[in-house]
Amino acid sequence: MTETSAPDLVRADGRTPDALREVTIERGWSAHAEGSALISFGRTKVLCTASFTNGVPRWMNGTGKGWVTAEYAMLPRATNTRNDREAVKGRIGGRTHEISRLIGRSLRAVVDTKALGENTIQIDCDVLQADGGTRTAAITGAYVALADAIEWSRTKKFIGQKATPLLDTVSAVSVGIVDGTPMLDLAYTEDVRAETDMNVVATGRGLFVEVQGTAEGAPFDRRELDQLLDLALAGTASLAEIQRAVLAEARATATATA
Amino acid sequence: MTETSAPDLVRADGRTPDALREVTIERGWSAHAEGSALISFGRTKVLCTASFTNGVPRWMNGTGKGWVTAEYAMLPRATNTRNDREAVKGRIGGRTHEISRLIGRSLRAVVDTKALGENTIQIDCDVLQADGGTRTAAITGAYVALADAIEWSRTKKFIGQKATPLLDTVSAVSVGIVDGTPMLDLAYTEDVRAETDMNVVATGRGLFVEVQGTAEGAPFDRRELDQLLDLALAGTASLAEIQRAVLAEARATATATA
Amino acid sequence: MTETSAPDLVRADGRTPDALREVTIERGWSAHAEGSALISFGRTKVLCTASFTNGVPRWMNGTGKGWVTAEYAMLPRATNTRNDREAVKGRIGGRTHEISRLIGRSLRAVVDTKALGENTIQIDCDVLQADGGTRTAAITGAYVALADAIEWSRTKKFIGQKATPLLDTVSAVSVGIVDGTPMLDLAYTEDVRAETDMNVVATGRGLFVEVQGTAEGAPFDRRELDQLLDLALAGTASLAEIQRAVLAEARATATATA
Amino acid sequence: MTETSAPDLVRADGRTPDALREVTIERGWSAHAEGSALISFGRTKVLCTASFTNGVPRWMNGTGKGWVTAEYAMLPRATNTRNDREAVKGRIGGRTHEISRLIGRSLRAVVDTKALGENTIQIDCDVLQADGGTRTAAITGAYVALADAIEWSRTKKFIGQKATPLLDTVSAVSVGIVDGTPMLDLAYTEDVRAETDMNVVATGRGLFVEVQGTAEGAPFDRRELDQLLDLALAGTASLAEIQRAVLAEARATATATA
Amino acid sequence: MTETSAPDLVRADGRTPDALREVTIERGWSAHAEGSALISFGRTKVLCTASFTNGVPRWMNGTGKGWVTAEYAMLPRATNTRNDREAVKGRIGGRTHEISRLIGRSLRAVVDTKALGENTIQIDCDVLQADGGTRTAAITGAYVALADAIEWSRTKKFIGQKATPLLDTVSAVSVGIVDGTPMLDLAYTEDVRAETDMNVVATGRGLFVEVQGTAEGAPFDRRELDQLLDLALAGTASLAEIQRAVLAEARATATATA
Amino acid sequence: MTETSAPDLVRADGRTPDALREVTIERGWSAHAEGSALISFGRTKVLCTASFTNGVPRWMNGTGKGWVTAEYAMLPRATNTRNDREAVKGRIGGRTHEISRLIGRSLRAVVDTKALGENTIQIDCDVLQADGGTRTAAITGAYVALADAIEWSRTKKFIGQKATPLLDTVSAVSVGIVDGTPMLDLAYTEDVRAETDMNVVATGRGLFVEVQGTAEGAPFDRRELDQLLDLALAGTASLAEIQRAVLAEARATATATA
Repeated sequence: MTETSAPDLVRADGRTPDALREVTIERGWSAHAEGSALISFGRTKVLCTASFTNGVPRWMNGTGKGWVTAEYAMLPRATNTRNDREAVKGRIGGRTHEISRLIGRSLRAVVDTKALGENTIQIDCDVLQADGGTRTAAITGAYVALADAIEWSRTKKFIGQKATPLLDTVSAVSVGIVDGTPMLDLAYTEDVRAETDMNVVATGRGLFVEVQGTAEGAPFDRRELDQLLDLALAGTASLAEIQRAVLAEARATATATA
Repeated sequence: MTETSAPDLVRADGRTPDALREVTIERGWSAHAEGSALISFGRTKVLCTASFTNGVPRWMNGTGKGWVTAEYAMLPRATNTRNDREAVKGRIGGRTHEISRLIGRSLRAVVDTKALGENTIQIDCDVLQADGGTRTAAITGAYVALADAIEWSRTKKFIGQKATPLLDTVSAVSVGIVDGTPMLDLAYTEDVRAETDMNVVATGRGLFVEVQGTAEGAPFDRRELDQLLDLALAGTASLAEIQRAVLAEARATATATA
Repeated sequence: MTETSAPDLVRADGRTPDALREVTIERGWSAHAEGSALISFGRTKVLCTASFTNGVPRWMNGTGKGWVTAEYAMLPRATNTRNDREAVKGRIGGRTHEISRLIGRSLRAVVDTKALGENTIQIDCDVLQADGGTRTAAITGAYVALADAIEWSRTKKFIGQKATPLLDTVSAVSVGIVDGTPMLDLAYTEDVRAETDMNVVATGRGLFVEVQGTAEGAPFDRRELDQLLDLALAGTASLAEIQRAVLAEARATATATA
Repeated sequence: MTETSAPDLVRADGRTPDALREVTIERGWSAHAEGSALISFGRTKVLCTASFTNGVPRWMNGTGKGWVTAEYAMLPRATNTRNDREAVKGRIGGRTHEISRLIGRSLRAVVDTKALGENTIQIDCDVLQADGGTRTAAITGAYVALADAIEWSRTKKFIGQKATPLLDTVSAVSVGIVDGTPMLDLAYTEDVRAETDMNVVATGRGLFVEVQGTAEGAPFDRRELDQLLDLALAGTASLAEIQRAVLAEARATATATA
Repeated sequence: MTETSAPDLVRADGRTPDALREVTIERGWSAHAEGSALISFGRTKVLCTASFTNGVPRWMNGTGKGWVTAEYAMLPRATNTRNDREAVKGRIGGRTHEISRLIGRSLRAVVDTKALGENTIQIDCDVLQADGGTRTAAITGAYVALADAIEWSRTKKFIGQKATPLLDTVSAVSVGIVDGTPMLDLAYTEDVRAETDMNVVATGRGLFVEVQGTAEGAPFDRRELDQLLDLALAGTASLAEIQRAVLAEARATATATA
Repeated sequence: MTETSAPDLVRADGRTPDALREVTIERGWSAHAEGSALISFGRTKVLCTASFTNGVPRWMNGTGKGWVTAEYAMLPRATNTRNDREAVKGRIGGRTHEISRLIGRSLRAVVDTKALGENTIQIDCDVLQADGGTRTAAITGAYVALADAIEWSRTKKFIGQKATPLLDTVSAVSVGIVDGTPMLDLAYTEDVRAETDMNVVATGRGLFVEVQGTAEGAPFDRRELDQLLDLALAGTASLAEIQRAVLAEARATATATA
């Protein structure tokens, strides 16, 4: 931790600036999906399902490669004030589109589509309750659902016994500068006050998949950027451990906690 | 129970024809909503939230009456095969519309809108997992969420201390004739095989709010209709008891089980 | 008639509580459709057409079965106040969806889809003028259009000479409790005042296809439900006779009146 | 008639090239609308209603002027082959838009919006059966509906007793060159064979409101254009007489025939 | 010129009534499209591209004929006041539809679709800046883009060396009566004041493809119509010359000016 | 430049890895908009307009603050293969939404909304031709349009003579790792081959507004990220100079080139 990260500052929920919220992953939550995980980052709860289909979209036929795609959505009262349903409005908003695309890209970064073969895995991340960090929780939980769906497809012989479609794990966390202090895994009340807000997606080996930093208030300098990247990599490393722990357990009963 | 209901026949899940599945109601599930309940009818799980707004839609301004409305939706992988999101398709399907309207009408049947005053309660019922009876579970859970939102608004003084906007409880259950036997609370595999399928919404006092019977196979006669109505009223009476039990507990910890 | 139905009470239009409005069916109204009927229930006028297509939707290919489906709509000024067109709003409302689905289900209940072979009949019911009971008039008229389209397809040899795709006739009527009196075939001004409103679809043999009862005001008890069902079955029996009479005539000139 | 118009050529339906089809106008068809007319040009049947609203769209508030607008649509089986509903497709097609705009402009050309005052008249033209010339029949019938709605608003004192919002009558007719012969009021089978197709909207005094000529096959020269304009003006003069005749009768019983 | 056309009257921009605005055509503007032209009629600027596809829409497969279609749109700030994007509104307006259809019909009038073979050319006309006459500039520029795309397809051997899919040139111009004077090629400020407004599409040989005249104010008589047609044919003859001049030059450097 | 950036490697268009493409800004391109710029980054051409409105959206009324928002779109044939129009598809795609939001956020980062007062500036960025870097060109050009619209509003006295709503300049550039070499301002053919792709938005003072890095191929490490950030800041510094130069000139004739 850099010295400016003020490790002894205490946040509203009692955390230090470099601490994740409590993370729980209820693996195999769904009775129907080939893979699923109900993940919590504190009060943020996201239900992630992975739906397996043998075959690929028409434009990929014959390529020998598989496809992983994702959709993100929020229940209307996941947030403090109710939001109208996008289905009722008849169109998907920009934020939803953006996050869906981010989740899909993040997962594909650790998938060897050749090894997956001509199969499609559709990820759905539905936010049941939101308290900041919904997209990062979604990516982290979606990886677990994806891993289980791939195991399922191996069991069902849609992919070979020796195929290793997953090149690494992937997880994500938010970081931000709040009242001048770089902080990890922002809760909603911190997020709205942050001058700079960054979402980092990284692999289990600590490589970057996505870095998305935005100046919400004043623009930020190189040193601040570096501090945030340090915090984020520490966070994704912890998340990767939790993912590995939950996936190491026997399925159906698995629930890991930070 | 009429004699034809074959009480000693055993169903796939071990129930007798006149038995409900296990019902659980996790009251106050949501950290944000003014009222909420996560209800299960067996493997069917519906998250019901009630969102309170002070004021009414423009067309009701000045009437002195309140408004209760509802929206129903299913997560894409709530079912055995994934369904495309209605938000992605850009339009709400007929079934969704129909069930949303049914839930709204059912709740309004037990609401004294004068006593509610010019306030709006928006109910959202989102099916997290489906195994038959999603609309009846939704109505039954929505009543609990509604009751809590009304209590909340009393605490916040949006309605008077003595106002009694709820005239009765309301719950719902499906019944159907499966392989010639009238049965209560159909699971999905029973529902698809039913010759006749009926959803009954009734008040705690045992009066009908909605009766919707459909011949899926052969048309049905008056005697069959009568048997189904008997079964349904017994079912809604049990559900009303569960609702009363869960609402009698102190909030936040309340979880009742059949 | 039960004693409470007050047979000597006189309604606004001079009818007794158990009387239908004047029913006329102008069979073969359309110069283009394979079957058609312009039906009136008093001032309610619905143009019903049946469009025959050889072949079925892709998902039914190879099943050897046919398909009957329906769409319902209202002209914008069919009602007393103009309604915006659904095409202009860009989406179909819940009520329209619900009624379209009801008409389709009602007709399919009397169709042997095996006997129909891989053919599709698309029913369109367009309300030209509305005065209550548009959905019940639509079902009743649609049956006549359907019967003629099936005859047409027999003449054109799309179905066999001995095939009998129609298992029975089907008709529908509304009933309701208005000012405490159960009444048959509600006109609009009665419908808005009804405490309970029920639509019943029944076959020529007197079996139920759909029973949809709704408490618009106070919930209703079992005895009221029974009275309404009695009234409704008497009404659908009369409608079945009118259908049979009009279909017995030589086509093109057929117009039956109650 | 110019010599090339071949007056003794006989058309499929027995007409000479310069003859209109039989025109009937059933005035006051609708029990609800402030003005209405069911018009037939041969087998083409269009239901025209005029809906009166006191007040104008927001952007016209305070201008002291009224507004007349129109919408055109076709029932799905008005034509020989069924067309999908625009409400189901979720968007209005280019042809529908174009004709709606044409009807509105044509009517406004004979309306003194100052004399109409801040009132709106919404015209709806719904084609019940199509056999060519639906837009011209719509304009001709819409004028009758409009005239009656204006009379209604005078009776109801929404406009002054001496106000004359209608400056003239307006009607429309199609003309075209079919197999080298200029012809009036094309039926559908003529329309599809026409090399040049023109719709002319003209006032009772014989002035042009719209001239829309299109080369469907080969481009046309100035002489052909002149012949078509001659034919069209003769046709709209006959239609204007029919309109005057039907409007001269006492309302509610009025039905004029060519 | 007829005597009433007042040739010595001077317009706001210094033109005589029978003069076109300065016309420039920047041929081959696009680095990507098979044919393209940036055309200006004074301050009106339209970017026209022609996109070639080998093959035709499914409904034309096997006919041996090609297809030419067009879409027209305006940038949101092409006009003096910003218009909302149709993509944001989620639907295309009536005017856009109408003009797109007009451009497509106008081009097809000079295309021999047999000679084009089963190929499709999609024209896009995007108005970058509007000052009246956008549809006529679009047609005139689109012809140049179309001609280049056809040449490109000849070079690429999608059509035969001797095939002549273009039967003639086509161009378009607006005319109108402003303050009683017939005028050619109206600028926006003239267009809004015009009593009568007409768009004429004509071939290089001087034949009419489309004549669309509208009374914006008072209806117009036959003599006025004749004056406008005279003016328009003189205008399209000049435009045809400019088209021929720009197409005669070596591609990529071509820019013709009136 | 870090040593790995391989400054003497030559790219397809002759540039060194750390060189921008030729940048031109045609300021005041639009005759109508309050501010406008046609910007080119090589063959990428984006028309940026700024539309000023006195007043703010309803939800900002009375805040004393202004609003800057942006919309991005591409002409259908801006790219090598034609894309269907979003207006025709009836919905805006995820990529379009994402870029529109990015442009808006980037501009707001340098705007003092208090100093802007209750005024709205709507930015439109329409890509006329695309060859990589459309979003970065859009941001860079939009700043110039915004600056001119603010000057216009000062001249028109919508904002005070001393108000300084612009806190700094803002520009954007893409960077990426192509064949192992970090490169600045990727052309399309480079972009599709890049393993890592990053868009950086920075102020004239060299502070970050947005950093969006994505692993298109393999995930990237911290050292690569640092190299890309170095390159990007050098690029945005050059762009800021070009912006300052073009804004220093007298308006209407201004065109700066790198």
